[in-house]
Amino acid sequence: MTVAYDGTDFGGFQVQKDGVRTVQSEMEGVLYQLYQQKVHVECSGRTDAGVHARGQVVHFDAPDNRLPGDRIKVAFNSMLPADVRVNSVRRAPPGFHARFSATGKEYRYKIWTGPVLPPLLRNQRWHHRAGLDAALMREAATHLVGRHDFAAFAANPGYSLGPTVREIHAISVQRKGHDLEIRVRGSGFLHKMVRSIAGGLAKVGRGDLSPSVIPRLIEAGKRDGCVPTAPAQGLILWSVFYGLPITDTLP
Amino acid sequence: MTVAYDGTDFGGFQVQKDGVRTVQSEMEGVLYQLYQQKVHVECSGRTDAGVHARGQVVHFDAPDNRLPGDRIKVAFNSMLPADVRVNSVRRAPPGFHARFSATGKEYRYKIWTGPVLPPLLRNQRWHHRAGLDAALMREAATHLVGRHDFAAFAANPGYSLGPTVREIHAISVQRKGHDLEIRVRGSGFLHKMVRSIAGGLAKVGRGDLSPSVIPRLIEAGKRDGCVPTAPAQGLILWSVFYGLPITDTLP
Repeated sequence: MTVAYDGTDFGGFQVQKDGVRTVQSEMEGVLYQLYQQKVHVECSGRTDAGVHARGQVVHFDAPDNRLPGDRIKVAFNSMLPADVRVNSVRRAPPGFHARFSATGKEYRYKIWTGPVLPPLLRNQRWHHRAGLDAALMREAATHLVGRHDFAAFAANPGYSLGPTVREIHAISVQRKGHDLEIRVRGSGFLHKMVRSIAGGLAKVGRGDLSPSVIPRLIEAGKRDGCVPTAPAQGLILWSVFYGLPITDTLP
Repeated sequence: MTVAYDGTDFGGFQVQKDGVRTVQSEMEGVLYQLYQQKVHVECSGRTDAGVHARGQVVHFDAPDNRLPGDRIKVAFNSMLPADVRVNSVRRAPPGFHARFSATGKEYRYKIWTGPVLPPLLRNQRWHHRAGLDAALMREAATHLVGRHDFAAFAANPGYSLGPTVREIHAISVQRKGHDLEIRVRGSGFLHKMVRSIAGGLAKVGRGDLSPSVIPRLIEAGKRDGCVPTAPAQGLILWSVFYGLPITDTLP
């Protein structure tokens, strides 16, 4: 299934112990209604509280074949709250797994650079009052593209880390009026990696970090105070790729 | 002052008896902090619960000249909740009144015509699943332009009505992907008039009302069941004009 959500009122995608509202719990609630039993939902990658999704991908093992995809989609969209929607449902090939079968992902990070953040965008933008030099940000981004150890752009120490090598296929930085959008496409992402990239690029854009420092940060292979994590609400999981050719150009 | 707000969590612009949250009460709360006395805020026209504004105009009589406009703007934006923002503040000419000095207004009404309403737009669109024929809607709109008695497009009977003659300068209907936007510019508007126009045009667009019926509805001069009121969340008060030439072309 492809799933879109407004992350504002969710404590992230994944079910949590303290009973906070999550996308997964809403979806599993619908599946319980449909199949009268607990059906587990697996996503392509968890999103944190406040992070949005346009094309999250989710799979579940249907207990039976009673319901066709279209019927499941309609059922979800009539039972889910309006801040989560199912855009498509189809039968997956045997062995498909939303997370392990994914070959790549695209995230977008949006920054509002105008003096006043429009109220209707307040949960969907990082409001960054300082001017940002997009050309400097693009220069810094070229150093991030490729296969690297991204430990310097992963969540802070203390968070348990596995292997930290990932491949970024493309990054673009585009300005449209007061909006500045960073698009990042890659094989996979560490926890808070896109928000750390956005935070680092913004620091470059306002002149507080030279683009040439990026290779040294990557080289160092550990997080330091120099890379801030941009706030959750500017981030959107745009799409997940499965075995399709991944282009290294971004519009 | 020009003011933008997300109408979702407000019971409209105007202060109400039952203490519901309103834009006016938030703004007067800030003015009380600034001037240590009750200062009344007057707007160009009330908006209903759920209706948004990009360019609402508001005036107040400052008790003193201590604070320059820029300082007032900063004070408002630091004290207001994030769903209301002040975009500009300037000293008005003597006798200026946000409502009585206004010579025209533009409203926009947005309809989502795709099968699934994106969660991030859920409070900013009317979700209209049936296909809408924009050409038919434009034809119907031509009959609304001009100086007419708009009683047929005003709030339902029971609501006290004054004179119901208004002038519409221009209406445009534009499609962009799944979005359909109706822009209406006019001298002034009756209560729920733009939402009634949007409801009527949508009915035309889905083939349930002929464009040629519009002149007869206007002629009849009273509301009948044939014109539905479109829901509040699709509407945005776009801008208010003061003495500036009003063009009759809309992009």
